[in-house]
Amino acid sequence: MTSLLVTNIGELVSWDDERPVLRDAALVVEHGKVTWIGERTAAPDADAVHDVAGAAVIPGFVDSHTHLVFAGDRAAEFEARMAGRPYEAGGIRTTVAATRAASDEQLAANVARHVAQMRAQGTTTVEIKSGYGLTVHDEARSLAIARQFTEETTFLGAHVVPDGTDVASYVDLVTGPMLEACAPYARWIDGFCEEGAFGADEARTVLKAGIAVGLEVRIHANQLGSGPGVQLAAEVGAAAADHCTYLDDADVAALSDGGVVAGLLPGVEFSTRSPYPDARRLIDAGVTVALATDCNPGSSYTSSMPFCIALAVREMGMTPLEAVWSATRGGAFSLRRDDVGHLAVGAKADLVVLDAPSHVHLAYRPGVPIASVLQM
Amino acid sequence: MTSLLVTNIGELVSWDDERPVLRDAALVVEHGKVTWIGERTAAPDADAVHDVAGAAVIPGFVDSHTHLVFAGDRAAEFEARMAGRPYEAGGIRTTVAATRAASDEQLAANVARHVAQMRAQGTTTVEIKSGYGLTVHDEARSLAIARQFTEETTFLGAHVVPDGTDVASYVDLVTGPMLEACAPYARWIDGFCEEGAFGADEARTVLKAGIAVGLEVRIHANQLGSGPGVQLAAEVGAAAADHCTYLDDADVAALSDGGVVAGLLPGVEFSTRSPYPDARRLIDAGVTVALATDCNPGSSYTSSMPFCIALAVREMGMTPLEAVWSATRGGAFSLRRDDVGHLAVGAKADLVVLDAPSHVHLAYRPGVPIASVLQM
Repeated sequence: MTSLLVTNIGELVSWDDERPVLRDAALVVEHGKVTWIGERTAAPDADAVHDVAGAAVIPGFVDSHTHLVFAGDRAAEFEARMAGRPYEAGGIRTTVAATRAASDEQLAANVARHVAQMRAQGTTTVEIKSGYGLTVHDEARSLAIARQFTEETTFLGAHVVPDGTDVASYVDLVTGPMLEACAPYARWIDGFCEEGAFGADEARTVLKAGIAVGLEVRIHANQLGSGPGVQLAAEVGAAAADHCTYLDDADVAALSDGGVVAGLLPGVEFSTRSPYPDARRLIDAGVTVALATDCNPGSSYTSSMPFCIALAVREMGMTPLEAVWSATRGGAFSLRRDDVGHLAVGAKADLVVLDAPSHVHLAYRPGVPIASVLQM
Repeated sequence: MTSLLVTNIGELVSWDDERPVLRDAALVVEHGKVTWIGERTAAPDADAVHDVAGAAVIPGFVDSHTHLVFAGDRAAEFEARMAGRPYEAGGIRTTVAATRAASDEQLAANVARHVAQMRAQGTTTVEIKSGYGLTVHDEARSLAIARQFTEETTFLGAHVVPDGTDVASYVDLVTGPMLEACAPYARWIDGFCEEGAFGADEARTVLKAGIAVGLEVRIHANQLGSGPGVQLAAEVGAAAADHCTYLDDADVAALSDGGVVAGLLPGVEFSTRSPYPDARRLIDAGVTVALATDCNPGSSYTSSMPFCIALAVREMGMTPLEAVWSATRGGAFSLRRDDVGHLAVGAKADLVVLDAPSHVHLAYRPGVPIASVLQM
């Protein structure tokens, strides 16, 4: 089969410049790429035809922020947090210990399981970070495992300072032997720039070391309070500053002027009962917004982009169309990808069919798994 | 096959009096009922064995409040509400018009689709109301269609006063020819006792007419503001008062003293951006709480009980275990059923297997479809 006509599309969300959303549409796929979109009645012939019976079709979700290489879970910590109880044994270090103790096979099986769950809900591109190894060996193997599943791998040695060392020594390790071991498996370098993790000078040192060996930059910034992370992102030319919960006007201007994508991760606010970031303010200021799951066993163990879309509409002032854009095209901008996150001619044919006539249903039917990837 | 051993259950939530939650458990099913539960190592022989590999097993969800007999959707109204825009054409009357215009076959196909979506997320018992017909013919056929899918059918002629009549005349119709036509297909009678719908006297008249022909009572109460609904529920011996968002101390006492189940429907608050009911207050006062979806195209178009559990934990002060209880055993109490909502010996073998080691993951992994009904 060389060409497939997908037809009877009730609503086609392609993000094509001239017709971003088209009703009663069709689309042709050849060799894994979109080669034609338009009105159903104008569709060309093709070798095969797939009729979606009036369903909406959108681009596959681009989840631009996940931490999938881990072992164990932290359900008891979650339960304690929801009940307002202290939980001493929790935190990233719990997952670091479980991850270090797991075999490569166990870690790869976990990633495979989560990637499959994501795909079952419409995610076709996923970024995966390291950051639960925190030794040269464990960070490198985390990235080698992640690389089995995606090209969008991110070295996050600077996630937290591990026990038994100080921040200066650890930054030396991260920027020295750990970076050397990890860079071959990574596209991106990332750092957690937040009070209690890495300060601006330390994060800058880490990110610049990554740039020096050819990595591109993304950053965790302004999650738990105001801070220098967003400004640092603009300064070093980061593709994305993720979290962005606490921003002053200068931060918003830095994102907008610097062309830094703001990655919003509402699963975190849901699962930690924290205030949601203000997407409306960012969009109105001209900032490019991406939505992602931040899937990780501590602060956000959802892997569902539709759930994040529903939260973005309920809690963050986004329209359903803006939320879908941010979960697809916005994610692609965050990863500096032009081949995914849209369905214009030339894009990868990552098609998601909704069990619904419009994209609005992703927010209108929260929790209902209506998105599925079209198998070709 | 006469007996099936389900074994290697990491966590069995059975609500059995002596061991409501059991680790490393097993369970035997014969002729569709649970005949044995206990520790895995003590399990008896059976004709067949199903190994769930450490997964958690819980009772199938009992969704005690839905409005599944309808046609059309109100996505545009939802979108306008989320954006804070007025939307003149919305409301229940939109759905009434679409429902009246639909054929029996179209209505039945819609119910079938939604029941299948519910089952795919772990719901094994569902209550279905009429209430979008509002004529003798359309209410009766709505209930006849609902009865094809469940025994738990509810006559809700007193949903809203239709255009072209006044409330007194409509109550006469509901309690006269409409009740006569509907009663053969209904187990329950329900009324929407709220300012702008039916007052206490009108609702009492409707409910007592239902009781007189052998129907049992459930009621929509105290959703949009304080009011007499909950007190009326206790007065007439209702099984359940659903919504319960605005309660004073006397209302809470009436629920507790009257043995009326409070049905909480957090999908409504999520999808209308309204304040959530305070489940903690009710539980602490000794009220039996049920969780349900209220699945309907206006105020809550979710059909996912796991989503409601996640909201109950995030927003309503319930623990994960309390939320699972309310979504299973609590729903069964709301429907006065002792055969479903639990997995003690003698109960129906409605088993839900979680793709997770514990029930906590239903709230810990919001939006992720981890619940599936065990096919036997």
